[in-house]
Amino acid sequence: MTPPDTAPTLFDQISFDAAGLVPVIAQQYDTGEILMVAWMNRDAVGETLATGRVCYWSRSRQALWRKGETSGQTQRLVELRLDCDGDALLALVDQTGVACHTGRRSCFFRAARDGDWHVIADVVTPPDALYGDR
Amino acid sequence: MTPPDTAPTLFDQISFDAAGLVPVIAQQYDTGEILMVAWMNRDAVGETLATGRVCYWSRSRQALWRKGETSGQTQRLVELRLDCDGDALLALVDQTGVACHTGRRSCFFRAARDGDWHVIADVVTPPDALYGDR
Repeated sequence: MTPPDTAPTLFDQISFDAAGLVPVIAQQYDTGEILMVAWMNRDAVGETLATGRVCYWSRSRQALWRKGETSGQTQRLVELRLDCDGDALLALVDQTGVACHTGRRSCFFRAARDGDWHVIADVVTPPDALYGDR
Repeated sequence: MTPPDTAPTLFDQISFDAAGLVPVIAQQYDTGEILMVAWMNRDAVGETLATGRVCYWSRSRQALWRKGETSGQTQRLVELRLDCDGDALLALVDQTGVACHTGRRSCFFRAARDGDWHVIADVVTPPDALYGDR
């Protein structure tokens, strides 16, 4: 993990888009499973590196999104990687529980088969248990 | 692999952005390695499913980008997956050679350490050998 150093060089090599965002892939560090794709702005990158807990930018809420804040399904950062042209990040994480709001481990639970999408993963934790009655 | 069926339902569940694009993660199907992130428009999705060879949309060239057309480093589609909110694709592929134009296997060859990015992967095939004298 990277210490909470906010050296400008690190941020300067990230090509944020016109909205100030960069897409981030979250991958379970030991199994290689792709958990989700979300977005970070500069503040989210900084907080993630500083705290070691993954923080995204919610485009729908227009606010920092500390993954697991409501559901408890947090992501511990293992390593943050940048691609060749600087416009995508890969976060190797250790996911507590499930990454998807549907209660599945991964958000990528639909596969193209016979011209349509087919669900290929079961719900592990029902959404009610993640978000209900809090 | 999905046969070349262009049923509208498959496309209708993909949330293309304002530019008509969706981000795509390419993952080596057997090792789990993340190779690259690129973009597809509707035509690229259709061609990829129809041919079984991964085709992206090049934002810089504003044209279909048949991966490996110049370099020979093609990607055979094993499975295409869609995330929960329909705005990201995961392509499980079998990568011939290297995915990155720098000649590295993966585009994600830089890791955040001590407040800067450090190269963590070697060049496998020099770019000259991929793109030179053609």
